Amino acid sequence: MRASRFFISTLKEAPSDAEIVSHQLMMRAGMIKRLGSGIYTYMPMGLKVIRKVEAIVREEMNHAGAIELLMPLVQPAELWQETGRWDKMGPELLRVKDRHGRDFAIQPTSEEVITDVVRSEIKSYRQIPLNFYHIQTKFRDERRPRFGLMRGREFTMKDAYSFDRDLEGMQKSYKIMFDAYTRIFTRFGLKFRAVAADNGAIGGTGSHEFHVIASTGEDALVYCPTSDYAANMEAAEAVATGARAAAGAALAKTSTPKASKCEDVAKLLGIDLKQTVKTIALTADKEDGSKQHFMLLLRGDHELNEIKASKVPGLAQNRFSTEAEILEVYGCKPGYLGPIGAKGPVTVVADRTVALMSDFVTGANEEDFHFTGANWGRDMAEPALVADLRNVVEGDASPDGKGVLAIERGIEVGHVFQLGTAYSESMQATFLDENQKPAPLQMGCYGIGITRILGAAIEQNFDDKGIIWPASLAPFELVLCPMGMDRSELVKAETEKLYNAALEAGIDVILDDRGQRPGAMFADWELIGVPHRVVIGERGLKEGNLEYQGRRDTEATAVPVAEALAFIKGKIQK
Amino acid sequence: MRASRFFISTLKEAPSDAEIVSHQLMMRAGMIKRLGSGIYTYMPMGLKVIRKVEAIVREEMNHAGAIELLMPLVQPAELWQETGRWDKMGPELLRVKDRHGRDFAIQPTSEEVITDVVRSEIKSYRQIPLNFYHIQTKFRDERRPRFGLMRGREFTMKDAYSFDRDLEGMQKSYKIMFDAYTRIFTRFGLKFRAVAADNGAIGGTGSHEFHVIASTGEDALVYCPTSDYAANMEAAEAVATGARAAAGAALAKTSTPKASKCEDVAKLLGIDLKQTVKTIALTADKEDGSKQHFMLLLRGDHELNEIKASKVPGLAQNRFSTEAEILEVYGCKPGYLGPIGAKGPVTVVADRTVALMSDFVTGANEEDFHFTGANWGRDMAEPALVADLRNVVEGDASPDGKGVLAIERGIEVGHVFQLGTAYSESMQATFLDENQKPAPLQMGCYGIGITRILGAAIEQNFDDKGIIWPASLAPFELVLCPMGMDRSELVKAETEKLYNAALEAGIDVILDDRGQRPGAMFADWELIGVPHRVVIGERGLKEGNLEYQGRRDTEATAVPVAEALAFIKGKIQK
Repeated sequence: MRASRFFISTLKEAPSDAEIVSHQLMMRAGMIKRLGSGIYTYMPMGLKVIRKVEAIVREEMNHAGAIELLMPLVQPAELWQETGRWDKMGPELLRVKDRHGRDFAIQPTSEEVITDVVRSEIKSYRQIPLNFYHIQTKFRDERRPRFGLMRGREFTMKDAYSFDRDLEGMQKSYKIMFDAYTRIFTRFGLKFRAVAADNGAIGGTGSHEFHVIASTGEDALVYCPTSDYAANMEAAEAVATGARAAAGAALAKTSTPKASKCEDVAKLLGIDLKQTVKTIALTADKEDGSKQHFMLLLRGDHELNEIKASKVPGLAQNRFSTEAEILEVYGCKPGYLGPIGAKGPVTVVADRTVALMSDFVTGANEEDFHFTGANWGRDMAEPALVADLRNVVEGDASPDGKGVLAIERGIEVGHVFQLGTAYSESMQATFLDENQKPAPLQMGCYGIGITRILGAAIEQNFDDKGIIWPASLAPFELVLCPMGMDRSELVKAETEKLYNAALEAGIDVILDDRGQRPGAMFADWELIGVPHRVVIGERGLKEGNLEYQGRRDTEATAVPVAEALAFIKGKIQK
Repeated sequence: MRASRFFISTLKEAPSDAEIVSHQLMMRAGMIKRLGSGIYTYMPMGLKVIRKVEAIVREEMNHAGAIELLMPLVQPAELWQETGRWDKMGPELLRVKDRHGRDFAIQPTSEEVITDVVRSEIKSYRQIPLNFYHIQTKFRDERRPRFGLMRGREFTMKDAYSFDRDLEGMQKSYKIMFDAYTRIFTRFGLKFRAVAADNGAIGGTGSHEFHVIASTGEDALVYCPTSDYAANMEAAEAVATGARAAAGAALAKTSTPKASKCEDVAKLLGIDLKQTVKTIALTADKEDGSKQHFMLLLRGDHELNEIKASKVPGLAQNRFSTEAEILEVYGCKPGYLGPIGAKGPVTVVADRTVALMSDFVTGANEEDFHFTGANWGRDMAEPALVADLRNVVEGDASPDGKGVLAIERGIEVGHVFQLGTAYSESMQATFLDENQKPAPLQMGCYGIGITRILGAAIEQNFDDKGIIWPASLAPFELVLCPMGMDRSELVKAETEKLYNAALEAGIDVILDDRGQRPGAMFADWELIGVPHRVVIGERGLKEGNLEYQGRRDTEATAVPVAEALAFIKGKIQK
């Protein structure tokens, strides 16, 4: 490609609404252009990267036996009503009425449509397993779109759906997709991690997220450096090790004026925050209109994990108790609650760590007072329930017993999910087994955020000059920068020679024939992030050399003209 | 590709709502699946054809210097309001409100968005010419979707937009696109014709449609077999040749009871329909609330061309006069109007052919009476206006004077259009010329109905067994049909050998390893329309032969095994 035949448009400054570096750099490099909130035109330079992402995804999906089709964007509401998602989805689902007043959804995902296709196509166990995928535009009407392609409203996703006869088959299909995803993210050249994820409300039996590692990532990834344990924060299990020490201190009601938070209490009493226990009051509204109240106890320095809390028996649907409820049930203002002498019909749920504590500090159920030296059994009953309620922290024991946990930040770019029969049952997608008996299809679904990959790759790979694309995703692998091509016949001739040789070698090369000054030209390509650059200048040529510089190199390397192509091919590994 | 790894689903019968052959065959061949009215899932077999169409279009667009980007589906109403199309488009434009109540359009085309992109990117004459295109999903909420992919609501279109500094540059860009389209349709292997088209209300200075020739086409294409004149019916000029003959008959008011149509009058009087003149009463409502009435005269066997009528001065906005208006203005029922003695303030517009007639029959402005022997000048004033008002018919003189016109049917699959400054002026898309003066960009737009190509190709190429794809569009170029691959080691070995050799030769080959009976297998591939088939059977192999049959061949040809690949390559021209 000659730059004069392409469209290159770079900016010195990013627009002020670009909050994160990938958004800023994509705008500055002319890869995307904002059309509306969370809606972008993919400009030629950005589309080229998207096509490279798509090509790798497509190749590996095909290689894994998945079959490509294309499902519509505009989908009849009836299908979404069959699964109940028309009501459940809320305002994220963009709804539209056609000229006849019929309801449609602009697809955010395609479980309903693929299940509808499959229920009419699949009759027999002999036709499965099957895995269909498409790469298609999606729309999710995010409440607060931001971060460019990272949290847009219109985006491109690869979504795949597997259909099997039984759980074992489904898990096999899942494993095939898990392996394909591993190959895909490896080919992208990105540092990534697959982590176990919570299945969420949708049910199913297993789920993993694929994250691109980046310090700016929104998600916390938990892993054990000395084993293969990895999970996201929602799913990472916090284990408590060791045994409860014997009581050593006497229980004492202590004045803690205005210290309603554990941090304040610890400071006031001059003790370690880890000796305090905080109380979180939750309420579950039952179907008969009555309420059940829960007191969740966590160590002062730990954080509640709401997903885990919702798995405690009775807490599937819970909310924080209101101040009025707390006053009514516990007879005390929030901030001073505790398990000792708590009034009212309350279920005490202790986090695993709390259940092993002794001589701890906890609220006295009286404003401005805490108990010190509290001990289970002696000062109060053992907790009604002990559960994993908290987020893990660095240094926690790994649940597999093979080390301690570390935490890093990641950006979710893929998700594989064992759906089971949730959709096939609600939509009556069945097949006949060997005994001619109908059974629901076992489903899996598998997504990759195609356009989000761009943002994630940049968050992981940039410097103060711009983007540093991994070779497999770069809009161009190589840029040729001739110095004064219009003035020097020698430069022109050698540039054209190298350009044609690179094209012939299958290198995705761009020749910058725009006639810009060296400084502006270099700044453009460093911003755009092309990984390999060759400068062709008259002075160097007279010494028989070209200048090569990798995007991460601090200095250029002189390369003899005759060896240039071989040298570049070695660098690009072509 | 092995058929066992692909998804093949054929039907014996097409669903009853499939009215035309391409729709029937695409449904039967498992290429598309209906999701809703005018909305289809592209099944794997159909998507494969779509990808081939897209690849050819993309290659030729790139070759012609157009630059690919991707504009969003969901587009803010504000842009559509700038050009006035938000109001003008009517219910064909699918409108949607987001969660904040803001209006958006699902794109039916992207003039507004590309003009918005360009007005912020193009500052100087040095940046143009530019031509941007994308291949994107479109939605048009057709009142009566039908014919499968031929008149769907959701479809895929390639739309390109050129930007130039002046008319000359725009016409050059237009010519480049016209030539690219010619190459594209040639590469598709389809019989096609480019015809001049009317510019429509949008203005501009030139327009051509590209039609796939098919007897089932909705459009009439006019062409001159002995010259390069070609136009669609709206645009084809009807010329009248020769001179008006002198009057030979006397004017006579003749009783024609209940003969309100020219056909009835001619029959009643025993004359040629070509001696009659029919009158069409039109009314134009003026802005001041008054009405202007027109009498359009056509030869009895000719048809009014409404587009041409609307170009008559004063008739830009016209409608058929109501019966009440006709009674009031002409004092006579419709069916008996004519130019002789017409009452009221009426403008008489004669078609060119009528203006040259003599001794003709026309209404007497009195129920059940016509004049015979009518002559211009003698019996009434010469017509106030003479204009081309009618559709051409076969045998008309070609407007270029180089022969007579023929008519064939076509399916519109492409349209190139000189837009001029209609959009750039309403959206203030200007550039600075050499003198730093702002000028509006000269635009062209260029569309190809990607998914419609499939329907059109089939309407042109089918037989009673199914589709006959041109090689460049076929889902697979070659199908290998082994006879009893599971029973015969010899068949299996030779099949695998040929399969691998074909793959290596770059042939898009499918090996039917489904283990079906020959009859069912052949019927499937004839229905799907793969152009080349090789049957590998034990009996033939023992004689050293395979059987080749082209999709249009009536018989198979025995080909020695050793020569098979070379033979096939020759057929496929690889």
